[in-house]
Amino acid sequence: MTTSTPQLGDEIPVWKLMGVEELQPEVRKGPTSPGPHEAIVAPQWNGLCGSDMHIYLTALLGEEKMKEPFVLGHEASGIVVQLGSAVKDLKVGDRVAIEPGEGCGRCGDCKKGAYNHCDDMKFAAADGRDGTLQGLYKLPADLCYKLPESISLEEGALMEPLAVAVNAITNIAKLPHSANVVVFGAGPVGLLTMAVAKALGARRIIAVDVQKERLDFAREYVATDVHVASPTKEGETREEYSQRHAGIIRESLEITDRGIEALDVVIDCSAAEVCMQTGLWLLRRKGTYVQVGCGPLYVKLPMRIIADRELVVKGCFRYGPGIYPMAIDLVSRGLIDLKPLITHKFAWEDAVKAFETTKAAKGEDGKMAIKVMIGPPPRLRE
Amino acid sequence: MTTSTPQLGDEIPVWKLMGVEELQPEVRKGPTSPGPHEAIVAPQWNGLCGSDMHIYLTALLGEEKMKEPFVLGHEASGIVVQLGSAVKDLKVGDRVAIEPGEGCGRCGDCKKGAYNHCDDMKFAAADGRDGTLQGLYKLPADLCYKLPESISLEEGALMEPLAVAVNAITNIAKLPHSANVVVFGAGPVGLLTMAVAKALGARRIIAVDVQKERLDFAREYVATDVHVASPTKEGETREEYSQRHAGIIRESLEITDRGIEALDVVIDCSAAEVCMQTGLWLLRRKGTYVQVGCGPLYVKLPMRIIADRELVVKGCFRYGPGIYPMAIDLVSRGLIDLKPLITHKFAWEDAVKAFETTKAAKGEDGKMAIKVMIGPPPRLRE
Amino acid sequence: MTTSTPQLGDEIPVWKLMGVEELQPEVRKGPTSPGPHEAIVAPQWNGLCGSDMHIYLTALLGEEKMKEPFVLGHEASGIVVQLGSAVKDLKVGDRVAIEPGEGCGRCGDCKKGAYNHCDDMKFAAADGRDGTLQGLYKLPADLCYKLPESISLEEGALMEPLAVAVNAITNIAKLPHSANVVVFGAGPVGLLTMAVAKALGARRIIAVDVQKERLDFAREYVATDVHVASPTKEGETREEYSQRHAGIIRESLEITDRGIEALDVVIDCSAAEVCMQTGLWLLRRKGTYVQVGCGPLYVKLPMRIIADRELVVKGCFRYGPGIYPMAIDLVSRGLIDLKPLITHKFAWEDAVKAFETTKAAKGEDGKMAIKVMIGPPPRLRE
Amino acid sequence: MTTSTPQLGDEIPVWKLMGVEELQPEVRKGPTSPGPHEAIVAPQWNGLCGSDMHIYLTALLGEEKMKEPFVLGHEASGIVVQLGSAVKDLKVGDRVAIEPGEGCGRCGDCKKGAYNHCDDMKFAAADGRDGTLQGLYKLPADLCYKLPESISLEEGALMEPLAVAVNAITNIAKLPHSANVVVFGAGPVGLLTMAVAKALGARRIIAVDVQKERLDFAREYVATDVHVASPTKEGETREEYSQRHAGIIRESLEITDRGIEALDVVIDCSAAEVCMQTGLWLLRRKGTYVQVGCGPLYVKLPMRIIADRELVVKGCFRYGPGIYPMAIDLVSRGLIDLKPLITHKFAWEDAVKAFETTKAAKGEDGKMAIKVMIGPPPRLRE
Repeated sequence: MTTSTPQLGDEIPVWKLMGVEELQPEVRKGPTSPGPHEAIVAPQWNGLCGSDMHIYLTALLGEEKMKEPFVLGHEASGIVVQLGSAVKDLKVGDRVAIEPGEGCGRCGDCKKGAYNHCDDMKFAAADGRDGTLQGLYKLPADLCYKLPESISLEEGALMEPLAVAVNAITNIAKLPHSANVVVFGAGPVGLLTMAVAKALGARRIIAVDVQKERLDFAREYVATDVHVASPTKEGETREEYSQRHAGIIRESLEITDRGIEALDVVIDCSAAEVCMQTGLWLLRRKGTYVQVGCGPLYVKLPMRIIADRELVVKGCFRYGPGIYPMAIDLVSRGLIDLKPLITHKFAWEDAVKAFETTKAAKGEDGKMAIKVMIGPPPRLRE
Repeated sequence: MTTSTPQLGDEIPVWKLMGVEELQPEVRKGPTSPGPHEAIVAPQWNGLCGSDMHIYLTALLGEEKMKEPFVLGHEASGIVVQLGSAVKDLKVGDRVAIEPGEGCGRCGDCKKGAYNHCDDMKFAAADGRDGTLQGLYKLPADLCYKLPESISLEEGALMEPLAVAVNAITNIAKLPHSANVVVFGAGPVGLLTMAVAKALGARRIIAVDVQKERLDFAREYVATDVHVASPTKEGETREEYSQRHAGIIRESLEITDRGIEALDVVIDCSAAEVCMQTGLWLLRRKGTYVQVGCGPLYVKLPMRIIADRELVVKGCFRYGPGIYPMAIDLVSRGLIDLKPLITHKFAWEDAVKAFETTKAAKGEDGKMAIKVMIGPPPRLRE
Repeated sequence: MTTSTPQLGDEIPVWKLMGVEELQPEVRKGPTSPGPHEAIVAPQWNGLCGSDMHIYLTALLGEEKMKEPFVLGHEASGIVVQLGSAVKDLKVGDRVAIEPGEGCGRCGDCKKGAYNHCDDMKFAAADGRDGTLQGLYKLPADLCYKLPESISLEEGALMEPLAVAVNAITNIAKLPHSANVVVFGAGPVGLLTMAVAKALGARRIIAVDVQKERLDFAREYVATDVHVASPTKEGETREEYSQRHAGIIRESLEITDRGIEALDVVIDCSAAEVCMQTGLWLLRRKGTYVQVGCGPLYVKLPMRIIADRELVVKGCFRYGPGIYPMAIDLVSRGLIDLKPLITHKFAWEDAVKAFETTKAAKGEDGKMAIKVMIGPPPRLRE
Repeated sequence: MTTSTPQLGDEIPVWKLMGVEELQPEVRKGPTSPGPHEAIVAPQWNGLCGSDMHIYLTALLGEEKMKEPFVLGHEASGIVVQLGSAVKDLKVGDRVAIEPGEGCGRCGDCKKGAYNHCDDMKFAAADGRDGTLQGLYKLPADLCYKLPESISLEEGALMEPLAVAVNAITNIAKLPHSANVVVFGAGPVGLLTMAVAKALGARRIIAVDVQKERLDFAREYVATDVHVASPTKEGETREEYSQRHAGIIRESLEITDRGIEALDVVIDCSAAEVCMQTGLWLLRRKGTYVQVGCGPLYVKLPMRIIADRELVVKGCFRYGPGIYPMAIDLVSRGLIDLKPLITHKFAWEDAVKAFETTKAAKGEDGKMAIKVMIGPPPRLRE
């Protein structure tokens, strides 16, 4: 594949979020003069994710209303346009995946390799900071990961959600050898989490969701087993439901309490309280539960079960060092196929349609939307 | 110390639980003919704990009413009376701490060293099985741990709750080097947990409780800091309270989010939902929370905090291999002093008073009860 | 598959080792009356391994000459013939893999799940104890692992060496996700180690050996890369050779010091000093080296490299709990194919030929011998 | 303690190494204009260590002769003289310990928190780079650790060797709770390693050395047991000696193979092959050996013992993130007393005497030298 390197121009197009469900195109001066270890990249493809949608639909940054318009986008690939004097491992024209978060590099967390917990983290499109839906983007060169020939720029943009899944499975779940894994929620991150579990040798990968359509996709994609969540009974509390439902899953999928068919890892990508509860009831003694999706501040959990069975419940927040290289390598080796996830693609000019498609969770064609992408901005297009 | 070895008699005294708050003395035939790897021990001192009290007050075994009268007691020391032919490491007359749970030794959990999760566990005074409040007790010899001269039989009986604390701090919390630890709940297990944390090199040991009297004891005993839980404000939910309260603790005790004064480990021995919540708000990124005390089946937990800060929440259930030897060693080396915890002692005949004192949480003398003990049965007394 | 259950007879055939290279058939009374948790099994197939050969060729048990004739064999499958009264998970006629080592179950090591370090370990054909080359064999029932229909009795006998490989890769190397692994020595255990690494998701599996024929086999079998060890130069010390050789391997196989092509794990199954040295030179910073094969008591190792690169060198001894079930599961799921390893099979009567074939490392047909097997004894044949 | 802040001058004094045992004083222009995240510090005290001596005595940098004169010194404390515009946590006049190694901050190792393995590491007085024996020193501000009032500048200079010991005990040995530890070599790093083991709760700390005088010091300082290495027997190989010697240590110190008196951790700070061998013979099954001192490239190790007992042998190289803060905290809390180690202090002008004292391992007074220090340079003196 050959790519015509975009040129640095004075003016770049951006998409700005003005307020609730209000996106506006704008043209402004692009970045120049990269520092010695920086790169200027021309973003090509941007994927949309749940947190983008949350901001788009609420205009909330954390708990507060946004104060100034800003540029969304943090799942992006791009082409290197200019490099600082000290950058050695990249060259102009390189196709790269963009890691959107820049730690300070000097605090205890950054030094310890936990830069996802850096207090001064600068993350694209978070905290009102401009993201990657723009013509040019300046960042530290070590956050640009060169894509091999075999990976397209569209796939490259998905390294960001894939990085979340890789982190959840490797660093947080510490996926045991030959483990049985349940993933609740068959959305993009759930599917990627299943894909990583499979690529890293999981034994059974069980998908649970409320939508049969998503589970059909999951089974076709990577899941070894799927389970459509049963309906609640009238008058049943969530807690009663989850315990009963765990029993149904256990029986129908022949999951045992002990031995080779016991469940080693539960990963929740649904953010639904009832899934969290069900997951905890399912785990074997000393099993590991990982929270990836982030729902309500408080949820009711069966703490007595956690205690009696010595379960381990762990949170997962973004990703740290070494994750992007592993994500790219897994795709490049053919162990993970990102293409099936890209269900809808829109031209730069149609960015609003991309957000609306993600909101509707289906396209105008009626096809279920998994990952919706926005293409390269004008003039800087490949 | 010299001990007159008790003699095997035909008849032994036992205390039987007949129903709610109904204890009855009885005389019956004692065990004989130990198997090749078994021991018959004359229990000397028995401590009372929360689970004893729960059964005494409710007659519930798990969720069900007890069906037959049975003998309580699982925190016991004793004197070896008879040994099986293959026992090498003990001799008649040895003073021992008794580990009250016998795994099957053949299942996957037992073989892996997790016998506390054995499905066929036989545990003294659990599941309606007879416990140690009797004149003689037969058990595998490898569950008898010889006490050094420097440890009294009264202290020996406390190895059981100490084992819970040792397990919580070592295997579950995996107490990091020089860690700051908060323990919620300054009852017997909470105090022992603090003592183990201190003995194993914790930096700060912060006790939180609602009773100032217990915290005064904790400070005198081993805590480096104490905090009397503040009262709730009118109309405040538990969740609001816990977040606000975490702020108060943080400020008053100069706990930070990062760095040397950040909180590495929270251990809940209170079983109170509001403590669990507060503890999770207090932890540093990637910190560890351990649930020791066991309260309601479901509690509301700040899952978004667990996720965003990548906390680790772990359950703790009894103890496994290697714990009793470490518990005895820590006491024998003077790193843990069990004597201050033994606030009330009763003769065998006054067992009912021991239960009533534990229930009242104070003695007739008005003195706060921490650990209440029942002395040796007649004829088998030292 | 139907199997005619063998019957308990008064007399069983055995093969006895009398002295150096001296095997003698014998008939003697078989075991009877299994204890409540025991099983009597009719061994069917026995595999020969390096340690068998060592004893056969030297008559040495550890450092001392054997004192009494005894029965060899510890890689065996069998059919259950009689069961103790308390055995629940097996029935007469079950086809099983036999775990040949029985820990005492009561010492600290056994309780901790490290029964391979039990001081009272009873291991088949070790320490002069009779092994599995006999018509009937009595052992604890929990050491009999039921084989699924899809696994033959011949394959079942190979669970023992496979267990060594599973232990090396999982518990000892703690194979990291997507790791690059080098295995020195492409004999049976080396090949099985490669197979396990592959089944558990290793990225590159590099085989190094001096024999091209074995490497051809390894590549066909599971290795992603192979390297025929280069010849030494005249006058070169082993140490000079190993450092130079590491450079050659590094270059020819494009192994890097850092990043995705760096070597995470080295496993030595060759027992050759020069391989150990070369392996240590090859590892990335903080990489893990595992010693499986056992050669001379002392070897020269580049300790300065271990220190400067913070390498981790670990020993591996047999296997512990949970390993047999995982080994059987990996084969049953088709992730490991044991059949190609079985190059030569001999009838019970031809046991001496089996030993001679293993000694020659090739059959009379000139075919390289990998795993040589001895078939079922008479009368108890399937 | 009040300190008069030194002033930035045009000229600073330095001590330059010209060649073998040739130190020369010089005056040159000092550093100016710190970058936004940099600090200029006036080094006050410098400690001398084994690697300084090695360079002083051989003029070798690694395997090659030094090419240009350069400034020695990497164990230093100092006073902050000027700060970059973005530095928040320090102010001019602060007394600090200086971490002498600066990773690139961008490579995979640095990002993962393993900056001690950074390929572009800039380390004071290594690779011909100028060290801290100069009037002013420019470095990243996050490598300056503020000393609390209770720690003197002399002690502050010892944070560097203490950091090595903290790393060895925490990150590498992962000192188990209540562990028995042997340290071979009672020089400065050995003594500090013992001190850290004690501060972090080790059970027994056994010092082994050939010099009784050093062991007397160790026992007085922190060791619970000491052992003067026995003399070799005529005609005995090192290997024979080490196995025999391990037996003697085992017996005389009542070290067992299993249980509470078994040896969990061996740390070699002697760099002597015979100590490494002896240490490996002493360890319990699955015990951990850590190599801190760095001797010959190759040593003979009992690999069969490593394999059979599943030992873990680990290298240790400098220290990574979080170590300096822990080192300072342990001293500040009184858990480690650095003062007894400072046996000899010299004025700046007498730097050569300091090197000669270290070389002789004793002062002109005949007193054993442990840590020899060089005081503040003129004009910038406190």
